[in-house]
Amino acid sequence: MKNLQTMIKEQGQVFPGNVLKVDSFLNHQIDPELIKAIALDFAAYFNRSSITKIVTIEASGIAPALMLASHWGIPMLFAKKSQPSTLKNDHVYHSPVYSYTKQTETTISIDKAYLTSQDRILIIDDFLAQGQAVLGLVEIAKQAGAQVAGVGICIEKSFQAGRSRLETAGLDVYSICRIAALDQGKISFLEEDKFCGQ
Amino acid sequence: MKNLQTMIKEQGQVFPGNVLKVDSFLNHQIDPELIKAIALDFAAYFNRSSITKIVTIEASGIAPALMLASHWGIPMLFAKKSQPSTLKNDHVYHSPVYSYTKQTETTISIDKAYLTSQDRILIIDDFLAQGQAVLGLVEIAKQAGAQVAGVGICIEKSFQAGRSRLETAGLDVYSICRIAALDQGKISFLEEDKFCGQ
Repeated sequence: MKNLQTMIKEQGQVFPGNVLKVDSFLNHQIDPELIKAIALDFAAYFNRSSITKIVTIEASGIAPALMLASHWGIPMLFAKKSQPSTLKNDHVYHSPVYSYTKQTETTISIDKAYLTSQDRILIIDDFLAQGQAVLGLVEIAKQAGAQVAGVGICIEKSFQAGRSRLETAGLDVYSICRIAALDQGKISFLEEDKFCGQ
Repeated sequence: MKNLQTMIKEQGQVFPGNVLKVDSFLNHQIDPELIKAIALDFAAYFNRSSITKIVTIEASGIAPALMLASHWGIPMLFAKKSQPSTLKNDHVYHSPVYSYTKQTETTISIDKAYLTSQDRILIIDDFLAQGQAVLGLVEIAKQAGAQVAGVGICIEKSFQAGRSRLETAGLDVYSICRIAALDQGKISFLEEDKFCGQ
């Protein structure tokens, strides 16, 4: 089974501003076998029983979120970054999300019809850096009265504040790969040689 | 196995301007079982042997494209609508795409590293209306020197010009559901009771 850490070591590229490019297998071109391994790794950590939906944000979170939803046989829901013409403002929950990489603020939204107080969601995303995207989803869950069972992340930049922000908010955060540093183009991991997948 | 036409009949909502909302199972909340059935339907129509990659556009094309790529064991590639900070202009193929629904023009782009003259791609998308998104991908394939094996569409608005534009361009277009009209909130299909899936 494919290993996310090995793929990052072999194909990841570091750019100025602590940007890690994993476009060849995770968020532009996608390796379906790796995404399956990622989904199985999330499934091994989180307890499926009480989770009603997988929730993510378009676009890069969709692949791992869908594969886990498919494995568990439950719906997947992705927050939209631009409001479609079929959604009116009072029909959606929304939250601002600031991107430190792009230095822009986006409003993410979810149709009120698909998230309720009956839901217990698992949040999945490709990257965790400053935690803003996940906190936006947590804010939307709060508006809906939904519970958050946990947060599953493919690649965590452990040298940034995201994890501590989420843990302070009481969230169970599980990241498949935790990156300790991106110094001078070199990628080092908190847990070297961790196997991704079961 | 789930049936796309039945889901559209049961849950699809018609909005002014020939907009069909399928947010409850296809492009906001996603039903993984339906997406699997859709992927198998595409796999039954197209000849996998010569196809090297599945190509789509973020965000709603990702789910069916990924599921087919996973079924066939080949990479999936999605065109981006906004250029990420890690992509320089001379590193991408790009094409303008006009949305008649949103009345806006977007530039879609694909990193030159992931599409070459060695590729024979299958284009997958959730909707076919005026054909602009698919023609944008075809233009990008042309820039890369890649062949287009065909176009697989989940929902075709057959009363709009998309299919004839794509066929005029010499493309093999396969749509799972073909909608004849969206008159006064009623959805009628070209082929009633067509079963989606094998």
